[in-house]
Amino acid sequence: MSDRTLIICGIDPGLRRTGYGVLRVEGHEDSIQVLDAGVVRCSAEGALALRLAELAAGINEVFDEHRVDVVAVEQIYSHYDRPRTAILMAHARGVLLAEAARHHIEVLNLPSTTVKKYLTGNGRATKQQVQRAVAQVLSLHYLPEPPDVADALAIALCGTSVLHEPARLQWANDDLLTT
Amino acid sequence: MSDRTLIICGIDPGLRRTGYGVLRVEGHEDSIQVLDAGVVRCSAEGALALRLAELAAGINEVFDEHRVDVVAVEQIYSHYDRPRTAILMAHARGVLLAEAARHHIEVLNLPSTTVKKYLTGNGRATKQQVQRAVAQVLSLHYLPEPPDVADALAIALCGTSVLHEPARLQWANDDLLTT
Repeated sequence: MSDRTLIICGIDPGLRRTGYGVLRVEGHEDSIQVLDAGVVRCSAEGALALRLAELAAGINEVFDEHRVDVVAVEQIYSHYDRPRTAILMAHARGVLLAEAARHHIEVLNLPSTTVKKYLTGNGRATKQQVQRAVAQVLSLHYLPEPPDVADALAIALCGTSVLHEPARLQWANDDLLTT
Repeated sequence: MSDRTLIICGIDPGLRRTGYGVLRVEGHEDSIQVLDAGVVRCSAEGALALRLAELAAGINEVFDEHRVDVVAVEQIYSHYDRPRTAILMAHARGVLLAEAARHHIEVLNLPSTTVKKYLTGNGRATKQQVQRAVAQVLSLHYLPEPPDVADALAIALCGTSVLHEPARLQWANDDLLTT
């Protein structure tokens, strides 16, 4: 996996806003280009099922347009302080994972602390610290906004690093949730 | 909605086994026929994304074959004793809801206590009590097996009752989780 061009899409799932960031990685992870970054927005109102279908349609456009090879997405923790939020996010995450599999896209599951630590050295970094680190690594002349997009790019960058260190693949492919 | 024929599919979501039961309701809920009942099985092993895609494909077959009008599915409680189970189930539920919306199928969300109470008079009925009640209401000469199928038929029956009592529709259409 070290010498070919790879399209990796980081996703920060949510029911109202799902951030995504698509990177082209040429051969080695030192050569990384941002192909696309944005937010799939779903109706704030309306039935959950309709909003999930909007999310599926939106992310399908991203997968199709960029012919994504790998999706990187954060694991969900089951000890969230807000279990209702975690359960709603899991609905969105389920839809995204199923769409990835339907497109034969490989999925990497990354703990959020690993993503933050990879980018900032600190597993509990703030959203602003992640934004600044993403801008620096990708040589952006601006801070990626909104934070959902910065988070998605951070997940994609960490996923790229994991793909180039096969020893780390084992836990990244582990679907078990962090408990 | 009182006089036309309605195809309603009850679903008991799970990552390994998703029970479903499809009923044809003619005009009034006294005339109910079981069209299909079974289990969509997903690989016990393998990546979560692939298993969710299997679930989507399996339930799509059911939706397509029976031209389902309404899906009834249990709400997820956010105070589950086992949050990991609830989060995994929410992945499956998200996929099912998105597929329903994609087929333009109306979704009813029913609290499990309401389903059990409707069928047995007891919101905390055992699986065996639900099986017996389902067999009685549908005049089956056998107990529906496995319990996932009995639960799915129970959810479909309760959904049918809700559709015929519009006053109950308000909460059944409410996507808010029971907390």
